[in-house]
Amino acid sequence: MMKLYYEKGTCALASHIALEEAGAEYSTMRVNFAVQEQRSADYLAINPKARVPSLVTEKGILTETPAMLAFIAQSFPKARLAPLDDPFRFAEVQAFNSYLCSTVHVAHAHRMRGTRWADDPAAIEAMKRKVPDSVSACFDLIESKMLKGPWVMGESYTICDPYLFTIAQWLEGDGVEPARFPKVRGHRDRMSERPAVCKAVAAELG
Amino acid sequence: MMKLYYEKGTCALASHIALEEAGAEYSTMRVNFAVQEQRSADYLAINPKARVPSLVTEKGILTETPAMLAFIAQSFPKARLAPLDDPFRFAEVQAFNSYLCSTVHVAHAHRMRGTRWADDPAAIEAMKRKVPDSVSACFDLIESKMLKGPWVMGESYTICDPYLFTIAQWLEGDGVEPARFPKVRGHRDRMSERPAVCKAVAAELG
Repeated sequence: MMKLYYEKGTCALASHIALEEAGAEYSTMRVNFAVQEQRSADYLAINPKARVPSLVTEKGILTETPAMLAFIAQSFPKARLAPLDDPFRFAEVQAFNSYLCSTVHVAHAHRMRGTRWADDPAAIEAMKRKVPDSVSACFDLIESKMLKGPWVMGESYTICDPYLFTIAQWLEGDGVEPARFPKVRGHRDRMSERPAVCKAVAAELG
Repeated sequence: MMKLYYEKGTCALASHIALEEAGAEYSTMRVNFAVQEQRSADYLAINPKARVPSLVTEKGILTETPAMLAFIAQSFPKARLAPLDDPFRFAEVQAFNSYLCSTVHVAHAHRMRGTRWADDPAAIEAMKRKVPDSVSACFDLIESKMLKGPWVMGESYTICDPYLFTIAQWLEGDGVEPARFPKVRGHRDRMSERPAVCKAVAAELG
């Protein structure tokens, strides 16, 4: 049985939802960032990056959301969470998720994790001030060019959807008004109605 | 025939090498950043993110290095550039590439692209000052935990190798002494001897 290490409010929710959608048997374990549990020796043995998510499988440990999402899709093909038989369409799914991890999540991270990229407190404050603009620019592109609707890739629900839903949860905290992005807002609403999403969100809040 | 849009010195080199390794038929087109060609209307029609690489295929356009690399591996299975029949090992490949795009490339980007994340000139200078430390921390992890040797994934050459090679080219410019990372240094040397690497590097310099 797989085990997902997560923290509340993090991108681990995307994999949590995907495991639910896939009908996987799994357990979850919270990593409490408030007490720096991600830097404990026990957790560093699982994930030396000191981050979440991590997915312990019978074959070994995986990290990095796009890789975990594709693994879940490939491991549970009956759930049809990605176009597994079409390399081009699979690459489109991966390109979307790669944009989320390398650009959108990174823009967001400058609000809370500025110490990764500068030591000067004034610089860290300057980074925070730009987050509403940089995150908005990402969501402008998602809204106008990337989100086909009703799901990210169009008619088919894929592993892009839980990942976008997860990152779109952060808009208000990042100082961005979700009403500016009606397609993203509609996507969030549709996602909220899915049983797998309700179950994963409720489990993390519990 | 596929067409790769690249700029010299960018992460597009990874896909360029992979196309060579795969034996693909392709052409290349330079996007000249010095004259802001990436923001031209013609290029924005190809890639609205105004970045490289982009790969024009007969089915459509792909962006994002990890997605393009997996697409090349899946489209040319005889080249054996990824463990395509084993979802767990494929996910390990993807996790490595995801770490490069979302963490290592991002650490590096704070040297030249600070305006993405702050407007204050002093903050941008503060970001530059931290690049040697943040990039070194990434390569410490790659050296000690991730690079199995002789190739990233061990005995099998994969799409991780051209990507690591590409990003490791930036160490000196980022103020990091490659001699600190003997395994990474050895990997760079081994890569330099591959005909596909020589050809791609030479073509971009030409």
